[in-house]
Amino acid sequence: MEHHPEDTTMTFHKAKKVVIVAEKIIASKIAAVIEEQGGKGYTVVQAGGKGEHGSHYTSERAAVVDDFSTVRIEVVVADREVAERISKKVVEKYFDKYSGIVYLMDVEIIRTTKFSPKS
Amino acid sequence: MEHHPEDTTMTFHKAKKVVIVAEKIIASKIAAVIEEQGGKGYTVVQAGGKGEHGSHYTSERAAVVDDFSTVRIEVVVADREVAERISKKVVEKYFDKYSGIVYLMDVEIIRTTKFSPKS
Amino acid sequence: MEHHPEDTTMTFHKAKKVVIVAEKIIASKIAAVIEEQGGKGYTVVQAGGKGEHGSHYTSERAAVVDDFSTVRIEVVVADREVAERISKKVVEKYFDKYSGIVYLMDVEIIRTTKFSPKS
Repeated sequence: MEHHPEDTTMTFHKAKKVVIVAEKIIASKIAAVIEEQGGKGYTVVQAGGKGEHGSHYTSERAAVVDDFSTVRIEVVVADREVAERISKKVVEKYFDKYSGIVYLMDVEIIRTTKFSPKS
Repeated sequence: MEHHPEDTTMTFHKAKKVVIVAEKIIASKIAAVIEEQGGKGYTVVQAGGKGEHGSHYTSERAAVVDDFSTVRIEVVVADREVAERISKKVVEKYFDKYSGIVYLMDVEIIRTTKFSPKS
Repeated sequence: MEHHPEDTTMTFHKAKKVVIVAEKIIASKIAAVIEEQGGKGYTVVQAGGKGEHGSHYTSERAAVVDDFSTVRIEVVVADREVAERISKKVVEKYFDKYSGIVYLMDVEIIRTTKFSPKS
């Protein structure tokens, strides 16, 4: 069942995306930090690669493609403040001991406002 | 066989990226919408995670890393108008019934102009 | 062991992200280019999808979700110059023969400065 276009208004709103690349072993801990700091959803993708600072995620470049000891976690939040809080907490709690990177990006998220005159 | 640098001019052009995170079950339908609305290519990655609005993609946080019931689809298009059209159509057709998010980002895409004086 | 917040200052710095989507068969060669051109780390994710210019990564749309003949490689670098160099070299060396796309994005990367008065 498709929604009727005339019932919905869609607008784009500026938001921030936090991207966290980290060792898979701490993925669920990072998910907990995200939720505690106000993130309402996140997307997790298995990844491989090579870290900065000499901390290789994989031992050989040729193995890079089939390595999945890393996760790439994305969180989209409405406020920069929440994005910064998540970023700082993850770095503070885990990136002394584990390798990884955290960065922010600008996004525009689509929001829908529904009108249901008959309900 | 490598291309000779002097034969090619490369420039960067502003473009829009649409990111759609949705349930895997509707991935091919979303791909169809992308093509119908003018997207010429897209990249699909298996993902897991947790949705906003209480719609969990996974039942437990600890399972987040090994869950792949979600897809993350990226489309890069030259015009904002096409990006908006894809976004709105996906939300309109599927996000009443299925959970997911859609957002836009600014990118600069590399374009090559080749000069082949001998061909 | 957690790090004490008072020992660390965290700041966000503008940086560039290069995203390269390419055939998996050349992933390790692209990784080599990234390192040669000054990239210090990169993240690799298995992907599927459909390319522009009629070069399909998959033969059928329905197969899109389960295809993984493609990789999505991300590199975050401090300077736009390095980002451009990586992008151009990848396009120049491989995108004549192989299909793929390369684009840049703005990011803000978190950096930590640690104070260790006792060490």
